[in-house]
Amino acid sequence: VPIRAGIVVTGTEVLTGVIADRNGPWLSDRLRDLGVDLAHVLIVGDRREDMAAALAFLREQGMRLILTSGGLGPTADDLTAEVVGEFQGRAMVLDEALEERIAEILRPLAKRFPNLDMDAIRTGNAKQAVVPEGATILDPVGTAPGLVVPPPQIAPPPQAQGQLGGKGESSRVVGGTTAETTAAEGPTVVVLPGPPRELQPMWEAALTTEAMCEALAGAGEYRLKVLRLFGIPESEIAETLRVAEREGVALDRLEITTCLRRGEIEIVTRYEPHAQDTYTAFEAVVRRRHADTLFSEDGSTIDELLAGLLRERRHTIATAESCTGGLLAARLTDPPGASDYVLGAIVAYANEVKSALAGVDPVLIERSGAVSTEVAQALAEGARIHLGADVGVGITGIAGPSGGTPEKPVGLVCFSVAGPGADQHLTRSLTLPGSRADIRDRATTVAMHLIRRALRQRS
Amino acid sequence: VPIRAGIVVTGTEVLTGVIADRNGPWLSDRLRDLGVDLAHVLIVGDRREDMAAALAFLREQGMRLILTSGGLGPTADDLTAEVVGEFQGRAMVLDEALEERIAEILRPLAKRFPNLDMDAIRTGNAKQAVVPEGATILDPVGTAPGLVVPPPQIAPPPQAQGQLGGKGESSRVVGGTTAETTAAEGPTVVVLPGPPRELQPMWEAALTTEAMCEALAGAGEYRLKVLRLFGIPESEIAETLRVAEREGVALDRLEITTCLRRGEIEIVTRYEPHAQDTYTAFEAVVRRRHADTLFSEDGSTIDELLAGLLRERRHTIATAESCTGGLLAARLTDPPGASDYVLGAIVAYANEVKSALAGVDPVLIERSGAVSTEVAQALAEGARIHLGADVGVGITGIAGPSGGTPEKPVGLVCFSVAGPGADQHLTRSLTLPGSRADIRDRATTVAMHLIRRALRQRS
Repeated sequence: VPIRAGIVVTGTEVLTGVIADRNGPWLSDRLRDLGVDLAHVLIVGDRREDMAAALAFLREQGMRLILTSGGLGPTADDLTAEVVGEFQGRAMVLDEALEERIAEILRPLAKRFPNLDMDAIRTGNAKQAVVPEGATILDPVGTAPGLVVPPPQIAPPPQAQGQLGGKGESSRVVGGTTAETTAAEGPTVVVLPGPPRELQPMWEAALTTEAMCEALAGAGEYRLKVLRLFGIPESEIAETLRVAEREGVALDRLEITTCLRRGEIEIVTRYEPHAQDTYTAFEAVVRRRHADTLFSEDGSTIDELLAGLLRERRHTIATAESCTGGLLAARLTDPPGASDYVLGAIVAYANEVKSALAGVDPVLIERSGAVSTEVAQALAEGARIHLGADVGVGITGIAGPSGGTPEKPVGLVCFSVAGPGADQHLTRSLTLPGSRADIRDRATTVAMHLIRRALRQRS
Repeated sequence: VPIRAGIVVTGTEVLTGVIADRNGPWLSDRLRDLGVDLAHVLIVGDRREDMAAALAFLREQGMRLILTSGGLGPTADDLTAEVVGEFQGRAMVLDEALEERIAEILRPLAKRFPNLDMDAIRTGNAKQAVVPEGATILDPVGTAPGLVVPPPQIAPPPQAQGQLGGKGESSRVVGGTTAETTAAEGPTVVVLPGPPRELQPMWEAALTTEAMCEALAGAGEYRLKVLRLFGIPESEIAETLRVAEREGVALDRLEITTCLRRGEIEIVTRYEPHAQDTYTAFEAVVRRRHADTLFSEDGSTIDELLAGLLRERRHTIATAESCTGGLLAARLTDPPGASDYVLGAIVAYANEVKSALAGVDPVLIERSGAVSTEVAQALAEGARIHLGADVGVGITGIAGPSGGTPEKPVGLVCFSVAGPGADQHLTRSLTLPGSRADIRDRATTVAMHLIRRALRQRS
């Protein structure tokens, strides 16, 4: 049975969406690496009852591990340590060594801002040093200490007493005793601060503590594979799963999730090592049925693949964009080092700019219309020639909401990739669904895939 | 007593951090506008028991409203409708009208991909049309219908039978009856699809249904005001709150959240109508102390304000961008109708492109460096002249992670706005904090504010 874990993210500003939580996804990754099965993430405000309810829910659901983030500051609405202490049935005690440690951390701050209210700071400092008895303290990275709080002790045998924890420099058991978790029931709670730059090293420190080793004993190993496909509807994958099943692949040994994102389909599979053969058989079915649309077998994104290809082939690239308004150039220049292969772009929103900068013949625009495969091709050529690139990309379309006609509806986008071969052209036209923002975003993704195809055709 | 609500975000890919949830924060904002008190957000994988446990937890915690997102697709791991049906004690029934509606949506898709497996599509389609009895159906924006599922019916009185729902075109009650929520207990569940572009309009449609009106009856009235400031640190706002308090403004009658987002500070205040005078007094303190940095008092974003100004003054605009790689052009062309005032852009990533397309003198680049206020100014002039715009914007900087020097560190960005007056120039250089993505994003925001300032100077 895998160890199940839950995460409680605290903070009214996270709950209300004012700031996005970055800790849940990060901790989720770390748990996966440990073979721990994350079952629930709960986001709650800074309210005592709601936090207590979230903890109780996770205990009832059989979690052996609970991680909390946030609520460890010096102010009155920072409640986590106290709520967790009560949850684990442990008295709150002032740890004088911790109080001194926090004071030490605050000293340089006080020097830098001489007119700070030192009384207020000392009050907060003392508050942060009051921790559940028997908890292991994680040394602060900022000013807030973290905690590993074992489940309530049930009649600890005498040999459990004595200094067992405190092996490293970054953790120490309050009261000098470690909890006898073998005799206890319920989850171990790891209490971490909210800022990611504090939480992340303190999580690593938590892993080295005795209390965590006990909580994690028996965690299994999992593998995670991601396949990505482009250009087919999600229902095709549903059928592929049925085909695999008919062919005798034991899909119940795999945890498969499919999801449609930005026009791409992602198949995420999680499995235990003994199910490797099953996964291999499943992947073979996907590869057979979707050879033409499966573009990533190792989790790489189209952005990573394209950057790799451009770099490897030493090709330079430039775009001439109309409806995407620079989104493709922005996406191509997103990775560090993009200046090695991206020369630049022309955003030709007005027709005059298409002609003046990208050299598109005004007669062609007049004859075929600004949104046409002919103009897309001329834009691609223009980008290539005027920016001196190996590969030129042209995009022109109707992002809407207005501007559509029966022949050329909103969502119609024409694409062209010129190069890398001298006479090489890859031109397509598609009608994309969704809002203006969706159409612009999807068109950018389609262009990324077309560029990759053009580069691979050449090889 | 305010109505309390919970959100259940489903999807293994969200739980495992493979994709970030955008629905929780968005729904959280919408609930706040309705005066509904969001208490918990739970993120669960695509597992029946975990979803059921999350729903049961929210019911136990006294939520009157539960929103779910995700798990409505055609594949077998899309379980939400079924789990919610069972949770509400309602039988699952095939809605033939819905089946036909989904088939209609899929028809153009089938045309586009002629060799699709239509049997597979029909199977998925039928699955999506099986919904809890008595639920109100929300018309699909993509292919997945949404649902408003009332609590279990407890001995419905006869007058509750009959067509009460189905007022709009975008919702209809399954079986032609609406649930008698007055006789029922427990929360109403609103089931929405995962993709934000589908979820958002369907939430608006849900609000117009009878079932939701009943669920929301008695929600208090709240007012929500948003002030936006640019160019001051968050600690200044903390001081402003203290000043307001000292001047006797009863801040405890207001729920104030301040947050730093994309380099702007947002002050969100929620209050009951009887606290209007208090809010007015608070706003006056903010206006007095931050007259120069307060740019929005009615919730408008800088994007909206700038679009409005350009349109109103009938000025055209063009950009020449280096480190932002087209992000500014993409942002300017984001609003519908941007083609009325955006002519285009030059993304001059390579120095050769700066000279060839934007006319920046290579000697100037050699002498001052590509990242310099001089080159920013030349780019702005180049954009204005070469694209024939009233306003030209130049940006050049070091987005990192490499390329910094002691004199020109990573994060240094130079900005220039040329126009709208013939000799008008506004040039700045700033060192922006954060990652490559942060620097590119912040630089775009700074440019938006500088353009607005240039336009207003002219007036």
